Formats: sequence, C-alpha cells, structure tokens
Amino acid sequence: MRLLLVNPNTSAAMTARMEAAAAASLAPDAALTAVTAARGLPYIASRAEAQLAGSAVLEILAEHQAGYDAAVIAAFGDPGLIAARELFDLPVVGMAEAAMLTACQLGQRFGLVTFSGTLLPWYEDAVALAGLLGRCACVRAVAAGFRSVTEVQHELEAEIVTLANRAVTEDGADAVILAGAPLTGLALRVGDAVPVPLIDPLAAALGQAQALVRLGAQPPRAGRFARPPAKPATGLAPALRRRIERRDADDL
Amino acid sequence: MRLLLVNPNTSAAMTARMEAAAAASLAPDAALTAVTAARGLPYIASRAEAQLAGSAVLEILAEHQAGYDAAVIAAFGDPGLIAARELFDLPVVGMAEAAMLTACQLGQRFGLVTFSGTLLPWYEDAVALAGLLGRCACVRAVAAGFRSVTEVQHELEAEIVTLANRAVTEDGADAVILAGAPLTGLALRVGDAVPVPLIDPLAAALGQAQALVRLGAQPPRAGRFARPPAKPATGLAPALRRRIERRDADDL
Amino acid sequence: MRLLLVNPNTSAAMTARMEAAAAASLAPDAALTAVTAARGLPYIASRAEAQLAGSAVLEILAEHQAGYDAAVIAAFGDPGLIAARELFDLPVVGMAEAAMLTACQLGQRFGLVTFSGTLLPWYEDAVALAGLLGRCACVRAVAAGFRSVTEVQHELEAEIVTLANRAVTEDGADAVILAGAPLTGLALRVGDAVPVPLIDPLAAALGQAQALVRLGAQPPRAGRFARPPAKPATGLAPALRRRIERRDADDL
Amino acid sequence: MRLLLVNPNTSAAMTARMEAAAAASLAPDAALTAVTAARGLPYIASRAEAQLAGSAVLEILAEHQAGYDAAVIAAFGDPGLIAARELFDLPVVGMAEAAMLTACQLGQRFGLVTFSGTLLPWYEDAVALAGLLGRCACVRAVAAGFRSVTEVQHELEAEIVTLANRAVTEDGADAVILAGAPLTGLALRVGDAVPVPLIDPLAAALGQAQALVRLGAQPPRAGRFARPPAKPATGLAPALRRRIERRDADDL
Amino acid sequence: MRLLLVNPNTSAAMTARMEAAAAASLAPDAALTAVTAARGLPYIASRAEAQLAGSAVLEILAEHQAGYDAAVIAAFGDPGLIAARELFDLPVVGMAEAAMLTACQLGQRFGLVTFSGTLLPWYEDAVALAGLLGRCACVRAVAAGFRSVTEVQHELEAEIVTLANRAVTEDGADAVILAGAPLTGLALRVGDAVPVPLIDPLAAALGQAQALVRLGAQPPRAGRFARPPAKPATGLAPALRRRIERRDADDL
Amino acid sequence: MRLLLVNPNTSAAMTARMEAAAAASLAPDAALTAVTAARGLPYIASRAEAQLAGSAVLEILAEHQAGYDAAVIAAFGDPGLIAARELFDLPVVGMAEAAMLTACQLGQRFGLVTFSGTLLPWYEDAVALAGLLGRCACVRAVAAGFRSVTEVQHELEAEIVTLANRAVTEDGADAVILAGAPLTGLALRVGDAVPVPLIDPLAAALGQAQALVRLGAQPPRAGRFARPPAKPATGLAPALRRRIERRDADDL
Repeated sequence: MRLLLVNPNTSAAMTARMEAAAAASLAPDAALTAVTAARGLPYIASRAEAQLAGSAVLEILAEHQAGYDAAVIAAFGDPGLIAARELFDLPVVGMAEAAMLTACQLGQRFGLVTFSGTLLPWYEDAVALAGLLGRCACVRAVAAGFRSVTEVQHELEAEIVTLANRAVTEDGADAVILAGAPLTGLALRVGDAVPVPLIDPLAAALGQAQALVRLGAQPPRAGRFARPPAKPATGLAPALRRRIERRDADDL
Repeated sequence: MRLLLVNPNTSAAMTARMEAAAAASLAPDAALTAVTAARGLPYIASRAEAQLAGSAVLEILAEHQAGYDAAVIAAFGDPGLIAARELFDLPVVGMAEAAMLTACQLGQRFGLVTFSGTLLPWYEDAVALAGLLGRCACVRAVAAGFRSVTEVQHELEAEIVTLANRAVTEDGADAVILAGAPLTGLALRVGDAVPVPLIDPLAAALGQAQALVRLGAQPPRAGRFARPPAKPATGLAPALRRRIERRDADDL
Repeated sequence: MRLLLVNPNTSAAMTARMEAAAAASLAPDAALTAVTAARGLPYIASRAEAQLAGSAVLEILAEHQAGYDAAVIAAFGDPGLIAARELFDLPVVGMAEAAMLTACQLGQRFGLVTFSGTLLPWYEDAVALAGLLGRCACVRAVAAGFRSVTEVQHELEAEIVTLANRAVTEDGADAVILAGAPLTGLALRVGDAVPVPLIDPLAAALGQAQALVRLGAQPPRAGRFARPPAKPATGLAPALRRRIERRDADDL
Repeated sequence: MRLLLVNPNTSAAMTARMEAAAAASLAPDAALTAVTAARGLPYIASRAEAQLAGSAVLEILAEHQAGYDAAVIAAFGDPGLIAARELFDLPVVGMAEAAMLTACQLGQRFGLVTFSGTLLPWYEDAVALAGLLGRCACVRAVAAGFRSVTEVQHELEAEIVTLANRAVTEDGADAVILAGAPLTGLALRVGDAVPVPLIDPLAAALGQAQALVRLGAQPPRAGRFARPPAKPATGLAPALRRRIERRDADDL
Repeated sequence: MRLLLVNPNTSAAMTARMEAAAAASLAPDAALTAVTAARGLPYIASRAEAQLAGSAVLEILAEHQAGYDAAVIAAFGDPGLIAARELFDLPVVGMAEAAMLTACQLGQRFGLVTFSGTLLPWYEDAVALAGLLGRCACVRAVAAGFRSVTEVQHELEAEIVTLANRAVTEDGADAVILAGAPLTGLALRVGDAVPVPLIDPLAAALGQAQALVRLGAQPPRAGRFARPPAKPATGLAPALRRRIERRDADDL
Repeated sequence: MRLLLVNPNTSAAMTARMEAAAAASLAPDAALTAVTAARGLPYIASRAEAQLAGSAVLEILAEHQAGYDAAVIAAFGDPGLIAARELFDLPVVGMAEAAMLTACQLGQRFGLVTFSGTLLPWYEDAVALAGLLGRCACVRAVAAGFRSVTEVQHELEAEIVTLANRAVTEDGADAVILAGAPLTGLALRVGDAVPVPLIDPLAAALGQAQALVRLGAQPPRAGRFARPPAKPATGLAPALRRRIERRDADDL
C-alpha cells in the first residue's frame, strides 16, 4: 500500500525527520511518500495558523493524492481533517485523532504533553473536536522556552519526561501522548522513563492509516462525508479548483 | 459605533441583500460597512468550502478591520470564527453562534431550518462547535431543489414555513432559526406563520455585535484568545502576513 | 424602546446603583425604568431566598410589565426567569444567563468571581441551569468577610481583582464575570487590572435585552414557553392572580 | 418514624387520596401526616405555577416540619425541593426525583407518562434538574382532554396504559413512571397491563423517605446544603420569616 | 419481607460483620439472610477480580434466590449487577449504585472515600456505570497501608475521617460515601466528625431493597431487562445452567 | 508479529470462520492463532452470558497468551476487555471498541446493525462503555428470526443490507458496523450495496491489534491498568489462579 504524508508546514527538515521515523511503523508491504507545504508557516502553533494550514492541506491533497491508498495530515491538531475527508475519496488520518483513539485502547484517560504553552488552546480544541474531553486527563506544556523547534525534543527532553510522569501521578493519565510533530520519535526513546504507555502521534497515525487501508471499506457516496456537488470557484490553486469543480481525474 | 460585515463568499448580490436587511437591526448610533470576498466560492455549502472561507475571513479582516468596533462573519456556520478571535482585537461575531445564543434566551430548544440538505453537516458541526447540541431540537432542510440561491427564500418560502412548523410540532423546538445567509430577512416576513419566535441570524449577529461593543470589555492579553506571538510567514496575502508577523498598525 | 429592570430584593439603594450604571449600556433610543420588591430580603444569597425572590419577580412583572418591550431580572442567579418567560409575552432577560452567553462569545471558558462564599451554590446552579457547566472554568468567591453589601465592591476590590487574575492563571478562564448585583459597575472600573475581558452582568443583560427587542421576534404561541391556560388561583397578589386567571389587559 | 406529606396544591381531595394510597408503602413503624396548601392553585401544571408552589412548600415546612423525621413534597416536579433541603434539617424527598432514582434501579431508561400535555415542560425540567436526561427514554402525555383532575386516572386509564406500552415498544423504556399526583395509585391497579415495572411516584417517594430516615445520616453543617446564615426578612409568612431569621425552635 | 445478601467474596468474617450491621437498617417486617461465595477471592480490589466475582454472584443467586423478595450484592462496585437484573425476577440492589442514588438526595455532589488506592479504578468505573460522574466530587483513598482487611475500618479510622473532611473542603462534596464492604458500620460511628451526611453503602442498599419491595412493581417481561430466551450451556454450575437453560423453578 | 484470537464461545465453527476471514486483514509479517472456549455458551446474546464469557476470556488468556504480541477478544460486546487489560501485559483489543474507534475516523456518526434483537441491550452497553453514545446514530437489529447462527449472515443478508441503508437514510449514519461475530466477512461481500463505509469488526480489531503492536509502547506499570498486586485465590482455573497469585511465567 502507498501512504501520503502531508506536512502542512513549510519546514522540510521536519518532513525529513518524520519520513525517517516512519519506517519503524510500516508493515513490509507499506511505502510512504512525504510532501511539504510550499507556503504558510514554518510550524503551526495557534488556531489562526491552523486555519491557514487546513487550507494548505486541501491544496496539497488536491495536487498529490492521486494513486495513494491513504493520507496522513502530519500536524498534531489535524488542520483540515474534516474538510479533507469530505473532499477526497481515500482515508485521511489526523495525528491527534489517531493518537487519541489509539490511547483509548490503552487506558481510560490519556494525558497530552507538549513542548510549548502556545499550543495548548489548539490541542485542547483537537480533543474537543474528537469528542474525547471525557477521556482526557490533562493537556500540559513545558513552561521553559526553547531555541530550535527542530531540536526541541532534545532540548526539553528532561522537562517533557517530568511532565509525562506528573500527568500520571497528578492527573491520573493511563497513557501519555507526546503531542506535536517536533516530538516525533521521542516516545520510543524515553518510553522506559514513564510508567504508562507513551504514544507517538506519527506512529499512531501510520498505524491507523494502515488499518483503514486493510479494512478495505468503500468511500462514502452518502452521509456527512459524501463529496459535495460541483461548484464554480475563483482564485484557488488550480488542482484544488479542479477538485471543487469536479473536473479532476476522479471525476472524469 | 462602526460594524464591519464580512461576506466570505464572492457574491456581491448577497452582500447587498444583507446590507439592506441590516438597517432594521441597528441602533441609531450604529453604522455598518460590508465587504465581499474577492476569491473563493459564490456561496458555501460544505465543510471543505467553509475551510477555505475561513482563510478568506482572516485575509479580509487583516485588510479591513482597522477602525471598526466589531466584526460580523456573514455566513451561517461561522467560518474562521475562532481563528479570527485569536488574531484580532475587536469582538468578532458569528451568525450561527449569535443566532443560537439568542435562541437560548427564547426557549429551551431551538430548531434549525435551512434551504438545502447539502448544508446540514456543516450546520450540525456549527451547533457542536458552540457546545449547544443539547439545546438543538433539530437541524432540517427542505428536500426540494431550487433554481437561484439569491432567490431561494422566495422560491422555497412555503416549504421553509412548513418545515419550521414541523420543527415545533414534531421536534419540540421553542424557537426556530432560519439558517443560511440567503434566508436573511425571511424571518421577519413570515413570523406570523409560525407559532414560536423565528430568528434571523443576521439580525441576531448584529444584536450581539452591538451588545459586545456596548459592554466595553478589554481585548484579551492572556488566556486562549490572547494574540499568538509573531511568526514569519510565506506566501500569504500581504495584510494577513503583516498581522501574523505582528507588523501591522495594531502592533506598531 | 422601553426596558423594565426588576430588582427582586428590597434594597432601594441597590436599585438606584443599577439604574445609574445602566446608562452606559443603553442605545440612544432605549430607556430604562427600575422597580424594587416591596417584600422579601435585602439581598439574595441562597437557593431558599432565590425561591422566594422568584415568586416576587412574578408579582412585580404582573403588576408592572404592561407597556415595556423587555424586562431584566436584576439578580445574578436569575430567580423566576423560566417561570416569567412562560407567563409574560415580552422578552425576559436574566443577568446570569446573559452574562454567560455574552462570555461564550469572548472565549472558550468563563470564570465566575463573586464577593461571598454563601452565594456559590446558587451561582453554580445558575451555570447548570443555563447548560453551561462545560464552559465554566471556575466559580470562586472572596474568602474575607465584608461590612456592607452596598459597599462590598469597594471594600473587596483588591481581593476580587486578585481572584479574577487567579481565574485566568489557575483555572484557564478566557473571560471573567463579576457576579452579583452589588458588583455592578466594578468591571468597567478594574478592567485594566485583569488580562482578559471582564463582564458586568447588568451591562450584559441590558445588551441582550436590546438585542432581543431589535430582533422583533413574535412571542411564542406554542412550545415550552407558550402561556399556560387560565386557572383559578387563591391568595395571590391581585395582578398575578389576574395574570394566571388570564383576566389582565393582555388577555382581554 | 414520622413522615410529613406536603401537598403544595389547594386540593384537599388530592391530599386525601394520597393519604389513603400511602398506607401500602409504609413499614409497620412509619406514620404519615399530610397537609394541604392554604393558598395557591388547585393543581400545578406549569413552571410559573411550580415557582409559586415552591414558595408555598417553604411556608408549609416552616410551619409544620418540627417533630417529623422526613418530609415528602407531594407534587411531581418537586417544587421548592432544593430550597427546602437548604433551609430545613430533615431529609426532604421529591416525588419526581424519588421516582426517577428508583427507576434507575429497575432499568437503563425510564419513560414518563402523564395525563396532560400542559405538564410536559415542567416534567422535562424535573428530569434535567435531576441530571437524568440520559436515562429518560421519553416524556409523553395523553392527547385527549379530561373533565376532572381528581378523576383523571379513571377517565384516561386506557389512554395512559396505551401510552405506557408505547413508551416500551417505541421509546425503549425499561420502566415507566406514571407521573403526576392525580395518578397516585394507578400503577398498582394497571401493573399487569404493561410489560415493564410501573412506578407510582408517591410510593417511590415514601420508599426513599423511609430509606433516608433509616440511614440515620447527620444533617449537613457544611457544603452546598448547609443552612444559610440568618437574614432579616420582610413580608413573609411568620414561621418562614422566623426560619430565615433563624429564630425558630431549631435555632434556639 | 425476605432479603438475600450475597457476599461475592470468600470471607465469612465479612459476611458476619455485614449481617450484624444490617439489623439497624431493617424495618420490623424485614428479615435478612446472608450467603458467602464458596470460591474466588477473600476480597475484591480490581476489575479482573470483579469480573470473576460477577460470575460468582450469578452462581449464588441461581442457587439461593428462590423465596426472597429482593437481593443485595454486598460488594461496593456491584459485580454482576446488570447481568443479575437480567437473569432473575426479583429486584437486585448494588451497594455502590444504592449509595450513590441515596447520596443524590442529600446533596448535589458526593465524595467517595475508601481505604486502599488499589480500589480506585474499580470504584471510578462504578460511578461511570451508574451514569453519575457529573455528581461525583471525588474518589479518594487513604495512602497508608493496612494490616487486616477485616480490621481496616479501625486501623485507618483517623485517616478516613481526615479524607472525608478533605472531600468536603477541597472537593466540594455535599455528602460522603464510605466505600467498600470492609467499612460497613463506620459511617454511623464517625458521623459526628464530618460536617456532611456520611453514607454507609450497606445501609443504603438495604434501604433501597426495602423501597423496591414495597413499591410492588412487576418484573419486566419486555425491555432491556426481560429475561433472555433459553440457551444450552456447558460446564456451568448446575443451578446457573438450569437458570440459563430456563429449567429452574421459575420456569416450570 | 503473533496475534491470539480468543473466541469466548464454545462454537468451533465460528472460530474457523473468523480464522479464515482474518487472512485478508493481516500484514505479511503477522500471523494469527485462534482458540475456542471449552465451556460456556454456543454464542453470546445477553449481558448475563457476556458476564460469564468475560470470565472465560480471562481463563483462556491466562492459559494461552504467553508468546503473543497482542490478543483480540472475538465477540462483539467485548466481554472481559477491561479486566483483561488489567491482568495481562500485551495489548488486548475488543471487536466492538475497535470497530467503533475505526468508524470514528470514517464519519461523524456510526450505525450498528445486527441480526437479532436479543443482542441490542448488550451492544448498546458496549457503545456506552466505550463512551461513544454521542457518535452512535443507531443500534438496529433485523426483526425476522433465523435458523442457524453460523448461517445467519446468508439467511438474513437482504434484511441486513436493508437495515444498513436505513441507518444511513433515516438515522444519519456515516458508516455502518455489521455487529456480531456471526456476520464476519459480510461487510466485504455487500459493501457495494450500501453507500457508506461498512465496517467488519474482526477486520477492524485485527487492524487495531497490528497498530498497537507496531506502536511498540511499554505495558503500564502505573495508572488504572497497572497489574493488581498478588492475591490468594480459591477454586479458579489453574492458569488464572497462577496469574492472580502472580506465580506465572511473567512474574517469575
């Protein structure tokens, strides 16, 4: 099976890191391709930025999704997830949703730990959007600042491990999600230092993407995720415009 | 006070209709200016389209909001509402949220009636986003098709009134929201034909905008709606880029 | 438009303070009249007292509401609100409900801060009644005592501001309601000292009352707030008895 | 043990019927006394009437509760229940709450069936107040009218049984509450005609009252139901005024 | 009336203690018989143990329930409660559910205090199963260890009282349940030391059992608790096999 | 990776069918072994039967789980799931939970369709246990009877497809789960006949099991799913007794 990883940020370094980390989560018959947004922000940390990233996700998918079996939106917070599921026929997986649904099978309540307080409102919204507030023990962020977002998982490793342990002892988390694409790979490295399962959102998303592909379900032709009817569009990226006007390959 | 009405669609006819209807809802000391999106879709009817419209709302507000006391996003479904509240210092009102909060003061449960089934998933999401599923008696759409979105409130007037009455008798609605910008003005016209209060979302939004301005509260400098820190951006509309990079008038 | 402010307490001093504060929240075309309960308690601080105050509200409205466009119940906790909406044809606004619905448009979660712990159960019930527990970050009261309820907003100003700030930093409130009629006007005075919007319930209630009047919706003739059928009554205040027996002006 | 039944209506016939029906639900060591409201309405059928009845309940309890082990408010809808629990030291039981909590032990979801549609909003509010909306399969009322409220359980017996059966087959009720004081005794009479447990609210309330007395728990001196501090009162019934001013027997 | 107390543990000492304590909670016309599980665990402290205990409850009831008017499952956490209600025709009461429903009539939120942290997940699940998470102020356990489970209520009395008081002052509990069969009788002994009602789960369960018997409702022949159709079974305890195969006394 | 499929029923034919169907859902590096319960019921259709099956699951896992990477409980309704997660160190997957979490990634609301009304209460409980009532559009069963549970998916194929389509059109399901082990394989066969994704619970469970194994998270040593301390046990199956007494291979 072929999986497409969509990085809605403009950071190619982050894309490369995720591509490298993904190998451990793929079955022998699965292959991954990653693309990086051409415009937008180097990383997303607010609802306003996520709003823009969501539109970027639609543009990238419109241009690249043909020929893939499933797509993963590679930003915790899942920008554009619902819109993408409506507009495209392949399964689309969000890192936040996938991590939380995976966590639900490992415990009653999960904790979310991340590296910057700026991310908290967006991540809290992602929990609410998934309808999982009742399963969420806490959403916590390291208070200390950091120098480089690409190195933050090393810079703040000790603080993040401390916070994950506090999520267990103070908030009653039965599993802890290390949230945010820049933390990709950290869960595997520090798993021994926390007494509950640590969840890497990219690994979780790849697991869910493979599960959905092997399920082999048909795309919806009715219901809330059936594709909307064709509509004329002005000033959009060409591939996205073709998709919305229903003039691309899937429609011909 | 000065209010800004942001139409995230490209239809100038719809903007004109809303501008005309607004007069009845403004206090003597309130004035309204309306702007129309330069690119996008003639009207919004899906979550994918709302995703794109939300980004358009941020672009328009970045360019036009200076000097206004409050803004209204003039599409039921409130594209970009949360992001806009985070990025701008003036109160931002959504037509769907305003209509529902208004309805909560007129009854226990409100019904939502609209003109096209395509809109239902988006409107249902708007109810969920506002946290008001428990107050929502139904979300219903006319089954019949229509010829012109600008004339739909006349074309389907009888069907909409019938549906509003069924929302009362079958679903137990205590108030009915006539949802969708193209229905602006209809509530006032057919109020006598339905035995519960009918709510016009534009009127409700203007009422809430004026209430927020008269409240005179300070914009947030902390909490989930404090403005995010400056961040470099690539490929965005100039005013929005300046806003995100914190280089516009409010930041200097 | 003509608005009626119903103070269900027997304190004329409190009525006068609210009348004075109201001016800043009224549009040029709005006028306010205030009435004070003739019997009951000098201020309300428990559910038992609120029960009695709710009956007083019905008595006052029955006697005074004719000729007004909307009424405001001027006690945070909204005694008699649901009953009044059922019995009278004009919009009836509650200070607590109005403050909370207003807050929902300024942030995800609001905090409630008040001047006496005795009030907490009643205010918590008001949050639950409005169905907004999920939006409420905290309900907090100053621990220190006070000498005069009419002067409490000055006596405890520093403590209230401290608590409002803790609602933000410790509880994650995005907006703070200064709850309790005796705090009327305080939000405007100390707004700069708290980094999120402060909400004055009287101002919020007047904003909602004006919004409802301008909406121009019909009173309900069906649904949960249609007026109940006539019923003989014994031993009630004359105007209220006439209302319940459907023999007052609206019924003839 | 001594139980006090408070009928907040002015109908002595209803009080007599309940007193007669109560015998079957009392243990050998329990005795019941019933009192009828001196003023108010012959029966309660709206939230406005329930508001007034709640104040009557406080008046009656203030005058009569001394020497009793527990009190039952004998109107489905539980007027004044929360206020009474706050103001008096004996357990106070509501017919609606008691019936619903009893039903929760007989099935997952209960249905509520009553004799008049006018009662529905009030009964729905009672379900919500008890926090049991998620356990409530339906709230249904007979559509046909009736001649005499004291004879309604005979007049509409067939319709009520039909509705109870529909609550089972159409709404999935596992138990059915025959709601409304005028239906007292009906459950026992028609139990064979409905294939799930039928609950008589008066019997349920007496069961709960006896359970609470045998529990032997202390009245609260802290928490949300501790008695409020003394407060001067004007124009109230003498016993209630003494209670609120903390000058009655319990306070001396 | 005849009540059957089912101790799903193998500890006869615990059964004896409960039998002795029960006397104070029984009406003059009620008699209690207690049985102890022949196999299983000396006490239950995890969900795995509760799973096994639930099966033991079904075995014991199948063998002993004939001739009783109601049964009480004498382990907080209510192992096998739902299954037993489905399989047997007499009312079956759980100590946890009964304690919580009783608490709901004494305050808005109850606290749960127990003697060992190992019990917490199971007890939290019991709160969730009853649908009462929103009424639960806290679930707390003494941190200190203990020597003997039969003496733990004496060994840890001071710690439990301290925790009950903290449930009031820190968590806002209006009533406190002393959870766990080994604490039977403690509530009565230390009631004066905690300023809110203390609830003994065995006393609460006996109160509810008597209330259900006096209610006199028919067992369900439809709905979610109608008895399942006969089915062949292999390798079960003889009486339980007969019950499931519908060949026991009730079926002939 | 090695997966263990636990059939808690005594039907070897059902086990064989599931084993055959599993092949299509396994990655090239995954192998499956299936075991059948030695005692119990030929299939499970009530909560009482599920109670007993849950104990059987613990017995089977205690005897067989050594050497496996994950286990799947092969009965929709997930008997023993929570207990098993507590008692064993490998990931344990439930068919119902897995199917529902998978469905959450394919739509907003899922429908559950099964072949016998007897199963409904158990399946509804499974939805509630997973905390997903808000995502569940309906739980529906074919009304017609059937001759053979092993052939029911062929006997009732047309009725099930009809019901799945009604779940879409009448209940608004965005995906439909064909619930019940006897329906294994049907989703793949009739996918074209229903316009939304059909979910096969066994395929979903195998997908989730593989995802959890590839995630590589550590088993919990703290939190609600840490293994309980050793405890003496009487009369249990030998391997389960060793597990609970912590004397088996994992503990030595």
